[in-house]
Amino acid sequence: MTPSIDAYRQVRAATLRLVDGLSDADLTPQSAEFASPGKWHLAHTTWFFEQFVLAAFGTNYRRFDERFGFLFNSYYNAVGARHERPRRGLLTRPTLAEVLAYRAHVDAAMADLLGTRVPAQAGTLVELGLHHEQQHQELILTDLLHLFAQNPLRPAVRVVGAEAAPAAAGPLRWVAFDGGNVETGHAGEAFAFDNEQPRHVIALRPFRLASRPVTNREWIAFIEAGGYADPQLWLSDGWDTVQSQRWQAPLYWETADDGARVQMTLAGLQPLALDAPVSHVSFFEADAYARWAGKRLPTEFEWERAARDLPVEGNFVEQGAHAPRAAAASTGLQQMFGDVWEWTASPYVAYPGFRTAPGAVGEYNGKFMNGQYVLRGGSCASPRSHLRASYRNFFQPGQRWQFSGLRLAEDA
Amino acid sequence: MTPSIDAYRQVRAATLRLVDGLSDADLTPQSAEFASPGKWHLAHTTWFFEQFVLAAFGTNYRRFDERFGFLFNSYYNAVGARHERPRRGLLTRPTLAEVLAYRAHVDAAMADLLGTRVPAQAGTLVELGLHHEQQHQELILTDLLHLFAQNPLRPAVRVVGAEAAPAAAGPLRWVAFDGGNVETGHAGEAFAFDNEQPRHVIALRPFRLASRPVTNREWIAFIEAGGYADPQLWLSDGWDTVQSQRWQAPLYWETADDGARVQMTLAGLQPLALDAPVSHVSFFEADAYARWAGKRLPTEFEWERAARDLPVEGNFVEQGAHAPRAAAASTGLQQMFGDVWEWTASPYVAYPGFRTAPGAVGEYNGKFMNGQYVLRGGSCASPRSHLRASYRNFFQPGQRWQFSGLRLAEDA
Amino acid sequence: MTPSIDAYRQVRAATLRLVDGLSDADLTPQSAEFASPGKWHLAHTTWFFEQFVLAAFGTNYRRFDERFGFLFNSYYNAVGARHERPRRGLLTRPTLAEVLAYRAHVDAAMADLLGTRVPAQAGTLVELGLHHEQQHQELILTDLLHLFAQNPLRPAVRVVGAEAAPAAAGPLRWVAFDGGNVETGHAGEAFAFDNEQPRHVIALRPFRLASRPVTNREWIAFIEAGGYADPQLWLSDGWDTVQSQRWQAPLYWETADDGARVQMTLAGLQPLALDAPVSHVSFFEADAYARWAGKRLPTEFEWERAARDLPVEGNFVEQGAHAPRAAAASTGLQQMFGDVWEWTASPYVAYPGFRTAPGAVGEYNGKFMNGQYVLRGGSCASPRSHLRASYRNFFQPGQRWQFSGLRLAEDA
Amino acid sequence: MTPSIDAYRQVRAATLRLVDGLSDADLTPQSAEFASPGKWHLAHTTWFFEQFVLAAFGTNYRRFDERFGFLFNSYYNAVGARHERPRRGLLTRPTLAEVLAYRAHVDAAMADLLGTRVPAQAGTLVELGLHHEQQHQELILTDLLHLFAQNPLRPAVRVVGAEAAPAAAGPLRWVAFDGGNVETGHAGEAFAFDNEQPRHVIALRPFRLASRPVTNREWIAFIEAGGYADPQLWLSDGWDTVQSQRWQAPLYWETADDGARVQMTLAGLQPLALDAPVSHVSFFEADAYARWAGKRLPTEFEWERAARDLPVEGNFVEQGAHAPRAAAASTGLQQMFGDVWEWTASPYVAYPGFRTAPGAVGEYNGKFMNGQYVLRGGSCASPRSHLRASYRNFFQPGQRWQFSGLRLAEDA
Repeated sequence: MTPSIDAYRQVRAATLRLVDGLSDADLTPQSAEFASPGKWHLAHTTWFFEQFVLAAFGTNYRRFDERFGFLFNSYYNAVGARHERPRRGLLTRPTLAEVLAYRAHVDAAMADLLGTRVPAQAGTLVELGLHHEQQHQELILTDLLHLFAQNPLRPAVRVVGAEAAPAAAGPLRWVAFDGGNVETGHAGEAFAFDNEQPRHVIALRPFRLASRPVTNREWIAFIEAGGYADPQLWLSDGWDTVQSQRWQAPLYWETADDGARVQMTLAGLQPLALDAPVSHVSFFEADAYARWAGKRLPTEFEWERAARDLPVEGNFVEQGAHAPRAAAASTGLQQMFGDVWEWTASPYVAYPGFRTAPGAVGEYNGKFMNGQYVLRGGSCASPRSHLRASYRNFFQPGQRWQFSGLRLAEDA
Repeated sequence: MTPSIDAYRQVRAATLRLVDGLSDADLTPQSAEFASPGKWHLAHTTWFFEQFVLAAFGTNYRRFDERFGFLFNSYYNAVGARHERPRRGLLTRPTLAEVLAYRAHVDAAMADLLGTRVPAQAGTLVELGLHHEQQHQELILTDLLHLFAQNPLRPAVRVVGAEAAPAAAGPLRWVAFDGGNVETGHAGEAFAFDNEQPRHVIALRPFRLASRPVTNREWIAFIEAGGYADPQLWLSDGWDTVQSQRWQAPLYWETADDGARVQMTLAGLQPLALDAPVSHVSFFEADAYARWAGKRLPTEFEWERAARDLPVEGNFVEQGAHAPRAAAASTGLQQMFGDVWEWTASPYVAYPGFRTAPGAVGEYNGKFMNGQYVLRGGSCASPRSHLRASYRNFFQPGQRWQFSGLRLAEDA
Repeated sequence: MTPSIDAYRQVRAATLRLVDGLSDADLTPQSAEFASPGKWHLAHTTWFFEQFVLAAFGTNYRRFDERFGFLFNSYYNAVGARHERPRRGLLTRPTLAEVLAYRAHVDAAMADLLGTRVPAQAGTLVELGLHHEQQHQELILTDLLHLFAQNPLRPAVRVVGAEAAPAAAGPLRWVAFDGGNVETGHAGEAFAFDNEQPRHVIALRPFRLASRPVTNREWIAFIEAGGYADPQLWLSDGWDTVQSQRWQAPLYWETADDGARVQMTLAGLQPLALDAPVSHVSFFEADAYARWAGKRLPTEFEWERAARDLPVEGNFVEQGAHAPRAAAASTGLQQMFGDVWEWTASPYVAYPGFRTAPGAVGEYNGKFMNGQYVLRGGSCASPRSHLRASYRNFFQPGQRWQFSGLRLAEDA
Repeated sequence: MTPSIDAYRQVRAATLRLVDGLSDADLTPQSAEFASPGKWHLAHTTWFFEQFVLAAFGTNYRRFDERFGFLFNSYYNAVGARHERPRRGLLTRPTLAEVLAYRAHVDAAMADLLGTRVPAQAGTLVELGLHHEQQHQELILTDLLHLFAQNPLRPAVRVVGAEAAPAAAGPLRWVAFDGGNVETGHAGEAFAFDNEQPRHVIALRPFRLASRPVTNREWIAFIEAGGYADPQLWLSDGWDTVQSQRWQAPLYWETADDGARVQMTLAGLQPLALDAPVSHVSFFEADAYARWAGKRLPTEFEWERAARDLPVEGNFVEQGAHAPRAAAASTGLQQMFGDVWEWTASPYVAYPGFRTAPGAVGEYNGKFMNGQYVLRGGSCASPRSHLRASYRNFFQPGQRWQFSGLRLAEDA
């Protein structure tokens, strides 16, 4: 269904709020090959609409700058040549002001277009573009956090208002689910990515899911039990990574001069919130923790089964905390959505009968179905309207710059 | 069930036949980090019995050389420190004669042990050790082929007798299978690796399987259609590999001075057998070929469903051809076992309820369940008694030094 | 001799003029490990005065920010730990405004200090600091050029006024010099770096020097004669570099869509000035060119012998062209100073009797006396007052982002 | 002057004696890119005669195997394509027996040729070939030592007879030399490499040279004073190497289980000979040691001045010790020849007026005149007849697998 002008404007405006108060300099460098500059995100999401909507369906649309296609195409081979990914941080030009003008130029043309009767195919692409932009909203925050964490001054990306004293996480409970054949994947007319489809049957065995994610306090116990020093707990590739990267704790954990555990956050260096879900752990770490705990990670199908009837509520980017928070005392499953993405045991592969769309947008998801694992649920940096129970996020097993944590599972 | 002395001797003797006629020098270097020297295989398989059987269950067993544990432990962290894998090719000592003496020393002690009433646990480990040695028999051949292929003289590893003129592959037919819940994984008392278990239910959709693997002739069509030059056909990681490795054909394919396609084999450089199954292709290539052909790779569950009632017959190492051969004219599925391992679409992960064995042998399979894909069926370098329908072989998606090919599938 | 306040201010102001009109974003990224961000240069040169002058000799001096020592120490082990060099481009903070405030803070304290009777040792360090800052002035330009050249938009660092039509380079003449023992190295009381001393005797053989540097036009002849494709012309390490870096022309040379040769400059992409000295060539290229031409590079001693009585006149940074220009018609040696640094055949090693200064400033030059070659004369980016006949610049033989060219020599 | 058949045979036979008792396997692998397999040395030195003498001047000479030119050309671009250097260790074929047959084939043809009246140019090339083979004799030993040192079994390359108890090194004395202009470089009609020529004048300042090289005992004092932990002692590139390679002692030094210092040698692991010259140190280490000792390395010109009137006597390969030995009590300079090569402060560059020979042999020395330092004097692995006062050996400053030590110098 074609989004309304208002829906379009809301998503686009939300993006700009994330970089409010940051300078052109803050938004220019690239701190790792897997991350991108803030300015690049602002331009790339705009190019998506220009390339796939306006250039295809606009009337008399004139590109803002013919050269931007080369600069801001991320990975679409079908569209043409592009700037090498590891060199995105060298683009001091266009300036931030020029990128904002680019956004305004495209927004104006999009408003014109959306004011007319739009072909269904265009409407679908606008919808895809808005969900695409929401994905980049999350990346803007996690990439900025990574960049600012490289700075020995540990500056804050954002000043976040004082919170109430963090609550204590409730005790971990186990929630049981029956086995049997279940329908998995997206159903219905609402938007979903191609990788959530087709809906199909999975045979599940009975299982139990932890009521909440693993907390920082629990992770400290893993560290203190020598979890990072015992190869028996790790996948072989994980153990190689532990040694070559010298991992001894989640990303962004540090020890202050007084010996206290602190963590780099979007609000700068902060005391570690012991009852909040552990975040910035890799799949390898999540898997090792589960083995140490005598449990396992859930499959993505188990997770989806458990989440399918829950409301999408939780600590999202809209809350403004921009950090995971302790679970409130409750019954049933807690924090299934928001706070931290949850690593599953499932490699990211195609669902049976999966087909990519024809043309360049067919490159959106399908070609990345190798070497990654599925995460479910969304994080404190995800927009609420972007999430659903069938949503499949995915990253390589050694990555940890996202708000990624874990929830334990066990056989019933 | 504890293997008999005869069974033990047969497997051990088969290993030595594979290196018959090769010198200490031929068996010493290491041509790639993923490969090992022939001499190392001879010693490592021996160490397996020494370490896990004789040292644990032998009476008054004296190790042949206390230092060999360090040299010939492959990857068992629980056993202790070990020689670094990429440096295996620098061990000019022990000499081949010393390694053969090591084998004789261990064989004598094993004969003594197997002549007594052996505890069940020991018997299980002997059985595991024999299957382990069979795996290394295949690796001896593929690693030697890789080493000899690096030599500009392209020497033959073995002189293989003249074959009858290769047959033409029959036309490709499609064999249909119903969907529904099927039991998957090993059942019964006979030996199987831990990764083939537990048996569990998979929900399948109806599918069709090609009657035979893709042939070299068909692969040439893929090349000539520009398959290696079109990013739209490839997974993103696959395309990166095509470019960085400059792949333009399967491994070992070359062009002779007269323009003819030739292939490095265990018998040296040979004309490409057009009707034989394509071999030495990576998962990335197999996946791209299937996409180009408008088909897909089967899942390992589909493959196992199709193979479960077939006899384990085909072109194995015992035939002595040591190369894939064209399928004989036949009905039904052909070449499901032997000739080439068949890449499946399934990442190599644990079956539901999978548990590793306690102790060092628990490292045998489980810790490698990341970043690899399952292959099924066995090859021209596999011992026949080593294979079964539930057998799961696995390699990284970019590897191609095994006898690895593919069979197409499609939704019914 | 202690510099005056005016002298201090002039050098400091000249630095700021070089970044006039550039944004914080322009001055933040780092385009290569060998280059540094503009903002880093502004801060590092300031830190040099803070660390070596104000902290040691100031009265009640308070550091602007205690953490800047870690951020802006370049390579002085004796001073303490420091930010890793390859990560300088990730410092979006301090902001440009903060760095300018840092400069003002130090300048004010320096003015106070220089208004008093300064100990001789402090005066020497102020003088060193100003020459140090002049070195970084040249690096600011060459590092910005490198950064902007990575941008597919090829933006101009500076708008340089239209020049008169470039003159034609005069014909190349040979100027002869006698052999014999000559004094080499700095003499007298004026400032010189430690590496120009002690003055000592070198036995020279008679030689001839080209009247002017090799031009772009002459370099094109080298290219068209296959100079980049003939290993016989190159040092072994040079040939390896040609192949691994795929060199086919000097750095920054490109071919326009219409086939014309163009060059990235501080004024953006410009037509190649055929009669200007070739620039941005490595030692390896200079050496190969000389071999191709049947000549050789001069030693640094020959160069100094030829330059010792010449005035320091030429095309320097003060002229504002910021690019090499064709030699004016003249007699004798032309362009010995300015336009392009001239690679010599001399490895950068200590003069006999060389001693480093005690303490951290002893690390200034001495520890780099390995693996580099001496360049002489100065460039279009060098401040005139920074240069003299005994001045030794030095870079690794594969580097080419400086304004580096060559002048031929031959035995008499 | 054309060597006699006897001279030819003596050198060729000496080569074979060095590999006596070693197997094909021992002579096949390559333990580092800078080293070569023993079998490769045997073949390459043979190819040198085949390519440059027999193919050019032989009558009806038939190559042993046309493909050997590709395999055994080391680095002569003018001769044609060649096997990549880092892959020399993968050549299990030709076998050692075939390589020995190759040697016999070429030796027979050389005997025929040398039995005739040989053109002067051919005679010069035969002489060059014999000196070339002598260089490889030393490399055979140092490369074998490196290979065997990688083996955790630390096997001996050779069994060396029990020596008399090692003598104590005499006290270090200083020998003074006047300054002034001295002739440097080879003079006379006897053989010398092109890089020792032309003879030319160097202006020297008065200097003193240590009477003997630095000993292992003295090096221990350097280690215990923290020499490997103090960046102030090191060149910048040297310090980077210390850290990246984790150097804490010379190559091949180890600590035995009982805490004693031991050293891997051609005779296996041996107690460290405290009074023998330190060996297997890099230029970086030699330079740091000299700085720590308050001295410096001599230039190659100072060394040659001091050695020019000394007889070529010492501990060479012919002595059969194959390890440096303590200096005998004596007066004057000791151990200038033999025992260990002595690093000098001189980069390896061309002498004034140096010209390479035309054709492929012009690649012998000249193209390596970059990034290396000169060593003088010869070692316990050098043939005595190969050495002279003007001889220039050269290696990269971080290399230490040769028998390389140092002798201190100071200004007079």
